[in-house]
Amino acid sequence: MDDPAAHKLQLYELVMQNGRSASPYVWRTRYVLAHKGIAFESVSLGFGEIAAAFAGRFKTVPVIRDGDTLLAESWNIAEYLDRSYAQGVPLFGGASEIATTKLFDAWLHVEILRRLFRLYALDIHNAARPEDRAYFRESREKRMKGRTLEEFTADRETRLPAMREAFAPLRAHLANYPFLGGAVPNYADHLVLAALQWVTSVSTLPLLAGDDAVLRAWFGRSLDLYDGAGRDSRMRPLFE
Amino acid sequence: MDDPAAHKLQLYELVMQNGRSASPYVWRTRYVLAHKGIAFESVSLGFGEIAAAFAGRFKTVPVIRDGDTLLAESWNIAEYLDRSYAQGVPLFGGASEIATTKLFDAWLHVEILRRLFRLYALDIHNAARPEDRAYFRESREKRMKGRTLEEFTADRETRLPAMREAFAPLRAHLANYPFLGGAVPNYADHLVLAALQWVTSVSTLPLLAGDDAVLRAWFGRSLDLYDGAGRDSRMRPLFE
Repeated sequence: MDDPAAHKLQLYELVMQNGRSASPYVWRTRYVLAHKGIAFESVSLGFGEIAAAFAGRFKTVPVIRDGDTLLAESWNIAEYLDRSYAQGVPLFGGASEIATTKLFDAWLHVEILRRLFRLYALDIHNAARPEDRAYFRESREKRMKGRTLEEFTADRETRLPAMREAFAPLRAHLANYPFLGGAVPNYADHLVLAALQWVTSVSTLPLLAGDDAVLRAWFGRSLDLYDGAGRDSRMRPLFE
Repeated sequence: MDDPAAHKLQLYELVMQNGRSASPYVWRTRYVLAHKGIAFESVSLGFGEIAAAFAGRFKTVPVIRDGDTLLAESWNIAEYLDRSYAQGVPLFGGASEIATTKLFDAWLHVEILRRLFRLYALDIHNAARPEDRAYFRESREKRMKGRTLEEFTADRETRLPAMREAFAPLRAHLANYPFLGGAVPNYADHLVLAALQWVTSVSTLPLLAGDDAVLRAWFGRSLDLYDGAGRDSRMRPLFE
C-alpha cells in the first residue's frame, strides 16, 4: 500500500538551536504553504549543512521537494506552488501583480532586510546551533570586509530610529487597510511577516517601539492567520 | 444631430504658465487614459481656480467629467476608468493587485513625493501662471509653518544625495525588468512617471545624476509609451 505521507511536500529550512525556523526566505515559503493550505513536512538544516544536503546544487534555503521536483529560491517556489496547487486562495492574480509585488520586495530588501542584518547579525550567530556558529561567523565576516559580527553590530541601538522610520510606508498603508493586501492578506503581507519572524527567532533587541500601534495591530492580526501558524512560545518580543 | 465631441471625457487639470500639466496626480490620470486608449479633452485650471470650478465640491485635480459622472481623486478615477472602459489593456488584475499598488504608492508618498516638494516648491511657484503665484505661495507657506518657499528650499542641493538614494528600490527592480510592471508597464510605472513629469514641468535643478543609467533607460522607454503621449518640447531636464 502507498503511504500518503511519503508523498508529502518537504520543506528544507534553516533552524536555530531551539528548533525554530529563522530565515526570512524560508518564512515566506511557510506562509505560502499556509495560505494555500498545503500540508508539508519540515526538514531541518543548520547553516553549515545546506550545500552538502543538495550536493552543491543549492546554497540557500528554502528548498522544496514536491514529488520529483526539487526547487530553490522563495520567489520561484511561491510561483510554482501557486501554479501547481489550485486549492485555496490564489496567491497572485497575474503577471502584473507578481511584478508589483517584486517591486515591493525590492523596497523590502533595500530599506528593511539590509538594515535588519545590521541589527541582528550577532543575534543570529548566538541563536544558531552551536555547531553552526563558526561557519556563520566566518562566512558573514568575509562579506563584511573583515569586520567581526561584534564590530558590525556594536552601534546597533543608534540605528534603531532610522530602522523604525523605514517602516513608515507600511504604517501609512495600514492606516487604511487591515492587511498590506487590503481586506485580506496577500504575498506582500507574507514578505514582511517573514522578515519579522526572522527577527522574532533571534532578537535580543526589540525592533519596534511599544507605542507603534498600527504595526502592532497588524502583526497581531497576521499571527492569528492560518490558525496561528506563525505563532509559538519561542518567539522573542518584537515590540519594546 | 449629436456632436460626439460633446460626449468626450473631460480632464480638469492644473497647468503652468507654459500650458504644461503639472500635478503628479493629474499625470497619473493622463497615463491611465493613454493606457486605456480613452480620448479626452483637457480643461486647464490654475491653482486659484480649482475650488470655484466645482463650486467647492472638489479642492484638487484631477477631476474627470464622463457623461453625468464627475469624479475626483486619482485613485478613484483610475479604478473607475478601468471598470467602465473594457477597451485596451486592463490596468489592474483584481483587488489584491490594487492593494499592493497602493502599498507601493504609500512608499512613493513617504519617500519620494514629500522629498520632491522640498526640492521643487519654489520652482512650482515660479513656473505657475503669474495670476496663481500669490495663492500658491500663501496656501503652501501656511502648511510649511510660516517658512517662505525660499527658506523651505534654500538647502535643496544638500538634499539631492538622499533624494537620489531614495530611488534605490526602483533601480534594483529595473535591473531585472524593463518596467516596474515587469515586461509591460502597469500603474506602478504611471505613478512614478507622473511624479517625474511633475518635476519636468517646473524643475530648475536636475533631479537625477547623469550616470543613473538604469533610471535613464526606463524613463526613456516610458516616454516612448502610448505614441510618446508624455513627451514634449517644454520638458525640463530630469538628468544632470
